[in-house]
Amino acid sequence: MSSSPITNELLHALFIVAIAAEAMTAALAAGRREMDWLGVCLLGCITALGGGSVRDLLLDHHPLSWVAHPSYLLITGGAALVTIALARFIHPLRHLFLFLDAVGLVVFTVIGCDIALGLGLPWSIAIVSGMITGCVGGVLRDVLCNEVPLLFRAELYATVSIVTGALYVGGLALELHQETVTGGALAIGLALRLLALRFGWSMPKFVYTKDLH
Amino acid sequence: MSSSPITNELLHALFIVAIAAEAMTAALAAGRREMDWLGVCLLGCITALGGGSVRDLLLDHHPLSWVAHPSYLLITGGAALVTIALARFIHPLRHLFLFLDAVGLVVFTVIGCDIALGLGLPWSIAIVSGMITGCVGGVLRDVLCNEVPLLFRAELYATVSIVTGALYVGGLALELHQETVTGGALAIGLALRLLALRFGWSMPKFVYTKDLH
Amino acid sequence: MSSSPITNELLHALFIVAIAAEAMTAALAAGRREMDWLGVCLLGCITALGGGSVRDLLLDHHPLSWVAHPSYLLITGGAALVTIALARFIHPLRHLFLFLDAVGLVVFTVIGCDIALGLGLPWSIAIVSGMITGCVGGVLRDVLCNEVPLLFRAELYATVSIVTGALYVGGLALELHQETVTGGALAIGLALRLLALRFGWSMPKFVYTKDLH
Repeated sequence: MSSSPITNELLHALFIVAIAAEAMTAALAAGRREMDWLGVCLLGCITALGGGSVRDLLLDHHPLSWVAHPSYLLITGGAALVTIALARFIHPLRHLFLFLDAVGLVVFTVIGCDIALGLGLPWSIAIVSGMITGCVGGVLRDVLCNEVPLLFRAELYATVSIVTGALYVGGLALELHQETVTGGALAIGLALRLLALRFGWSMPKFVYTKDLH
Repeated sequence: MSSSPITNELLHALFIVAIAAEAMTAALAAGRREMDWLGVCLLGCITALGGGSVRDLLLDHHPLSWVAHPSYLLITGGAALVTIALARFIHPLRHLFLFLDAVGLVVFTVIGCDIALGLGLPWSIAIVSGMITGCVGGVLRDVLCNEVPLLFRAELYATVSIVTGALYVGGLALELHQETVTGGALAIGLALRLLALRFGWSMPKFVYTKDLH
Repeated sequence: MSSSPITNELLHALFIVAIAAEAMTAALAAGRREMDWLGVCLLGCITALGGGSVRDLLLDHHPLSWVAHPSYLLITGGAALVTIALARFIHPLRHLFLFLDAVGLVVFTVIGCDIALGLGLPWSIAIVSGMITGCVGGVLRDVLCNEVPLLFRAELYATVSIVTGALYVGGLALELHQETVTGGALAIGLALRLLALRFGWSMPKFVYTKDLH
């Protein structure tokens, strides 16, 4: 389960980039709801760090990452504020944001799997832990913006997280080389997400119009 | 507080039926919001297992049921998927669903009371624990569907949970026979819920139209 | 960190007044959504005790206050019910309610800071803990009423909490006299909140209209 120092450092660097990127996309969502500057900051922090926090609460894994590393609050809150200042330059860079958001999804997923495995939990819970880490931040963002979470409605997002987690957990169970497994799961998950964005892939929808009562 | 093996087995069997039924009604709610298949699964799991999870978080009772028994995720996610396949046959069976949902409410309540009592908590918290177990799943479902929770607005739902919990906790406090108390609380709670559904009983509403500011 | 008995008793008395006031304003919000009487009670309890509960979950500080003191549920649920009975007399007293709500904000904040400091957490987390204690109850209320939380959109509310917490934590770090620090932080925070209400001060808003996709 314990990665090599190099993998760990790379994952950590990607994690920092990812939480900043998640905070920035959350700041844009806050802007669409005309939130004030502090609201933008708070929504950035909650979106970027909420998935990991919910995972840690559910798995009783304390202290939470931002309690142990308050600098994460500074990074995510700061990234949200920077977004306000740079808003007019963001639209041309939207493909970069969508790319970084996808990186965040797969990196969060792998970290979430790792934490569950480190707690000695079974592979199924590790995959769920990865999905919670990757996806719940966005659900909190949408609930706080008073929208039905995008996660439930559109795009291969949770699916990408499950595939990434299954590849990672499965690869480790097969005792493949740790770096290979991490790199492979991240690369395949990222590719799947980018292809889904490019070609508009999505899950079939379930439409039901009757009422139970 | 410890029930006999037979009561325990019966409660457990009812619990399994109840989480499947809750997942199926959540799947229908997801269908009314046109969620995709994975969203339907996720909403089913969250609705069926969310009440118990929130209770366990609040009472610091770990591991959560689905962490200890990942099969619960399979049962609830699977029940939600089956609902998609069988959607057209469900409307004629809607009374069965409402009945199973009512069974779930009282069974979840009794289980929630039991867990709090097992932790040595006072009777008042045991009743609250029962109500959280019985009702919070539906609140999460409604919040994720972007609706004001039905629980706060309509029908005797939380009331049924409180009555069931009070009968159960009160009966145990009077040292009545465990099976009698469990059976009695479940039966009276279930009857109350079904009568409320049949006759449209509800709490009076509080209507206030002024603003504080 | 440990206050004198007099400060503690005063803070505790203010805390009781504050949770009752928060429950009453939540009851008015429930009335605007036409919730039923039990829904009013539940929303009152969740709003008044939710901030402290979320803080305790995030910081792994158990048991939660209302689990240890079930009377808090009676106070907040009872205050919500009283609001229904007295609704017609409330509008003329709305300035009193806004004042008590402001008292609640700063008292909750100081208590939240104290709990984090008592757990040996750094000053930054203590300020965040204060803000969560002061503000999250209102966020839960707004989410359950299906609104974008007011906290993110309007008024100096979270800002007041941060200022109060920073003054309190900073004063203690400077080893000033405990009573002076508590009184000063409460008074300045309260004054800031009341001035903000009086003069309609608010943070600048971030408005962004483009979509990432």
